Amino acid sequence: MTTKDSKIPGATIERIALYSRPLEKFLEQETELISSERLAALCNVNPAQVRKDLSYFGEFGVRGIGYNVRDLLSEIRKILVSDREWKLAIAGVGNMGKALVENVNLLKRGYKFVAAFDSNPERIGKRLPSGLTVQPLTSIGPSKEESGFEIGVITTGPAYAQAAADSFIRAGVRAILNFSAFQVRQPEGCLVENVDFSIKLDDLAYHLSSIRGKK
Amino acid sequence: MTTKDSKIPGATIERIALYSRPLEKFLEQETELISSERLAALCNVNPAQVRKDLSYFGEFGVRGIGYNVRDLLSEIRKILVSDREWKLAIAGVGNMGKALVENVNLLKRGYKFVAAFDSNPERIGKRLPSGLTVQPLTSIGPSKEESGFEIGVITTGPAYAQAAADSFIRAGVRAILNFSAFQVRQPEGCLVENVDFSIKLDDLAYHLSSIRGKK
Repeated sequence: MTTKDSKIPGATIERIALYSRPLEKFLEQETELISSERLAALCNVNPAQVRKDLSYFGEFGVRGIGYNVRDLLSEIRKILVSDREWKLAIAGVGNMGKALVENVNLLKRGYKFVAAFDSNPERIGKRLPSGLTVQPLTSIGPSKEESGFEIGVITTGPAYAQAAADSFIRAGVRAILNFSAFQVRQPEGCLVENVDFSIKLDDLAYHLSSIRGKK
Repeated sequence: MTTKDSKIPGATIERIALYSRPLEKFLEQETELISSERLAALCNVNPAQVRKDLSYFGEFGVRGIGYNVRDLLSEIRKILVSDREWKLAIAGVGNMGKALVENVNLLKRGYKFVAAFDSNPERIGKRLPSGLTVQPLTSIGPSKEESGFEIGVITTGPAYAQAAADSFIRAGVRAILNFSAFQVRQPEGCLVENVDFSIKLDDLAYHLSSIRGKK
């Protein structure tokens, strides 16, 4: 760890990852410098927040000039350990599960699905376009050499989500991304991120109402 | 608007929506009171943040006792205008698009898809399980009575995302939720929320690395 403070809030880490997306484009376009104002605008964050977030990791910027795109991106990648491959398993291969397994953006970023599970007998044994064969949900077991996944992704129906999480945890998984409508319990020593799209829609709906209220 | 401040940050609105999810469960279970500590723990947020967020909307809590679950939820619903139905259109009915259109959680929360578009000739004219018939992406036009959508959701491939956004905006849509890997430009007067799952994975991967680094 090269950080000044090991207690970096989760929200900061998510924003740091967010900042890296436009920086990648600037690097491709060979843009050398970027101001915190421009980076902030591209990420819908305020500039003071950008400066505060980056200050956790040391001094990157030059006052009045901005950040060096290449250096900043390289530091962010070190922070996020995004120079390695992470192995993922998915529980639930309905539409959502298939969308994730086939998502080229995730693969490009080093997130590779190495195992797929489902409880539906009609899906078990089927081969996904990515080449994975769907295994029974009940067969999630202690990680084997060839399927040594580190992150479990849950896209089952709500009724199967906790069982899938429990199986992942028994298998030694310490990080879970949960897309199901069921809020999975977070056990000691395991990280659970719940993803709920309706929260993003609530945010949009709130702002739409505000705009109309002002008319 | 009953809020103390019309400039409520987007992140606060998202957290307010997040708080409502466990509150709904407590209301079902007829729990009367909840502390900011308990609510914070359930949402992976710190208690001071919960108190600060709720303070934007007035005084809900009683010091040392907590919040009345029913009152707090009712106020949050008023704030989020979540007592009405919102009409959505989707562009792109691959796996991700289908997962969203068929998501019962969204429908339960008042988000109803009333139109579906795609650029793939094999998909156009097909009927989705929800009853919608897929229309050509090029036919997104000024909102008609029967398909008067207010929020556009983009689940196309990156190459079609900006065109879909432009069509939605020409059709009078003022809020877009973008799941494509392409970062859609945010034009004046239209809200764009980009959803990128890899950011959640970056966050999990960072924390996994930190845990291992400490061993």
